[in-house]
Amino acid sequence: MNANRPALVETELRCGETAVEAPLACDAGLVFIGRVRTPWLERGQCPRRGDLEGPLCRLEVDEIWRPALRGVSAGAMIQVLYWMDRARRDLVLQSPRSASAPVGTFALRSPVRPNPIAVSDALVVEANESGLLVRGLDCLDGTPLLDIKPASCPAWREPS
Amino acid sequence: MNANRPALVETELRCGETAVEAPLACDAGLVFIGRVRTPWLERGQCPRRGDLEGPLCRLEVDEIWRPALRGVSAGAMIQVLYWMDRARRDLVLQSPRSASAPVGTFALRSPVRPNPIAVSDALVVEANESGLLVRGLDCLDGTPLLDIKPASCPAWREPS
Repeated sequence: MNANRPALVETELRCGETAVEAPLACDAGLVFIGRVRTPWLERGQCPRRGDLEGPLCRLEVDEIWRPALRGVSAGAMIQVLYWMDRARRDLVLQSPRSASAPVGTFALRSPVRPNPIAVSDALVVEANESGLLVRGLDCLDGTPLLDIKPASCPAWREPS
Repeated sequence: MNANRPALVETELRCGETAVEAPLACDAGLVFIGRVRTPWLERGQCPRRGDLEGPLCRLEVDEIWRPALRGVSAGAMIQVLYWMDRARRDLVLQSPRSASAPVGTFALRSPVRPNPIAVSDALVVEANESGLLVRGLDCLDGTPLLDIKPASCPAWREPS
């Protein structure tokens, strides 16, 4: 879909990891509403988690959806949903390097999951016509964007 | 897909609301991993937002994905992703009753959005073989379940 992005590499299973014959992913369809632009071009460069004082990233919103940005302004905390399009989707048990035994996928925030939807909180630094400049993301450049909503975490509702 | 669920009702547009001719939602496919069981059978009964002291709800996980629950236990705060399968997906401006002028979809947590994925934080009350009993949800009974992950909100990381 994007010639600049390398194809999915099926990572090898680590000790104790379990894959299932996953059902076809066609219960519902997603539309990509834009792309996330970040400084990270390879998986190894991405930070382990987003940092609200980290580098600026850009949420590029496709033209048709831009009117939906009305009311999102600098200073707002948002929840960004994006599609981790290069993760395998069939693991039920995973062996993170930090764990002594395999852990269930639903007990991890790993990108490897039946529906690889990431949910990250980010701070809006600038809102303009074509999208948002934000801090707090940790994904690869070019990642497909799924949604933007006001953050729901109570920690962001009041100044600390 | 589920004979017990009424079909989508296209809600009428309110004053100032704007629909677009949305592109086909086929950039990526979702797999439903189970269903959310709640006490609410009609939209009007659902609370406006989930409450961690609200009624018990059940996350029914399909058999193939159940091993992925290993490591999720009572007392954990989780993020639940589900699919709001009865919301229209083509509005860019919406007129919530509480607003004096139309607001962009990305400035709202309304179910009406290009990809109607809900993200709710919930408290695990019991984990058993077939799923989880939780508090904190606000959706209709039978809503398709997409994902379960550990909550990321800093408010849940330390006792208040």
